[in-house]
Amino acid sequence: MNEYVPPLARLVDELSKMPGIGRKSAHRLAFYLLSISDDEAKKLSEAIISAKKDIDLCPICQNYTDIKPCSICTNAKRQQNIICVVESPKDVIAMEKTNEYKGVYHVLHGAISPMEGIGPDNIKINELVRRVSENDISEVIMATNPTVEGEATAMYIGKLLKPFGVKLSRIAHGIPVGGDLEFADEVTLARALIGRHNLFNE
Amino acid sequence: MNEYVPPLARLVDELSKMPGIGRKSAHRLAFYLLSISDDEAKKLSEAIISAKKDIDLCPICQNYTDIKPCSICTNAKRQQNIICVVESPKDVIAMEKTNEYKGVYHVLHGAISPMEGIGPDNIKINELVRRVSENDISEVIMATNPTVEGEATAMYIGKLLKPFGVKLSRIAHGIPVGGDLEFADEVTLARALIGRHNLFNE
Repeated sequence: MNEYVPPLARLVDELSKMPGIGRKSAHRLAFYLLSISDDEAKKLSEAIISAKKDIDLCPICQNYTDIKPCSICTNAKRQQNIICVVESPKDVIAMEKTNEYKGVYHVLHGAISPMEGIGPDNIKINELVRRVSENDISEVIMATNPTVEGEATAMYIGKLLKPFGVKLSRIAHGIPVGGDLEFADEVTLARALIGRHNLFNE
Repeated sequence: MNEYVPPLARLVDELSKMPGIGRKSAHRLAFYLLSISDDEAKKLSEAIISAKKDIDLCPICQNYTDIKPCSICTNAKRQQNIICVVESPKDVIAMEKTNEYKGVYHVLHGAISPMEGIGPDNIKINELVRRVSENDISEVIMATNPTVEGEATAMYIGKLLKPFGVKLSRIAHGIPVGGDLEFADEVTLARALIGRHNLFNE
């Protein structure tokens, strides 16, 4: 007999395409899916289709949303003239969890990376420039990742937005809270030193 | 805003029900599924539904199959009078990989486990007894896992089948005790098969 009957082999193949799911995990998941009720399996299957169908990009901030514009872009309690630029929708979730930020977002869906063939036109930079040019924006906060790609993207966007006279800022880099100075890498420590501020905020 | 838009939250919920998939992994998988094409997502979704729809239990050996009876039970080249009793369909795959076994199978879909509330009637033991009583079976090989539950199940079935005068054997403990048949390597499993002994050591 073949290793698996065709429908099972197909399911294993499809599951193992997902990130972090190897053949062994895909087998385990496939057998789990066979063991649960038809209803349960249908729920998962439909959740996949419905997520793909109902979730789209917000026409303003480009974040994932099921209503257009998204609930952040239409929230009157948020400062619509402050834009925080992030690389991915996951970063929006992370920022929201801080309960610190009351402005709005712009999701780039990536960072400029010549190595991976991702240029400025492959991510949502043009949408950001148009947004800044057409609206009364007071500040754009660059919250791209502190990687080579993230820094380059922040600098590139900064140069594009400078002519609009908008305030441009970059989130601080330094020692993580709860972290240990001893184990911090040199670059982070150097950044923390450069970014030092007055102890008493005078 | 809520942490996630509803269709995404639902997808994360459904994904995190799967074994070995925590919230973090479910998030990663959900964002992956949003990033791929509609076609790709549809393929996975359909593979789940089709596996559930097209795969059923073989009326003879109770293994997963898309044709009834399954290709092993209808294979004239296999010894239809030797039955290897295993706990799960995964064990059939593992046994087949040894290329050592030429008989047929009986899949119990579990082992007797009073701790988990699994009694003899919750697994495919009655089907096995009926099969042995109605057919000319010469040997039944117990290949349940070498765990407390697997041993107990083998002994229980052995006692039920003894009156039929069929030869009863148990695969050898070449497999580490406490281990799982599914993860045994082919050589160990083949050794265990060759070294099988009478269940009652007569």
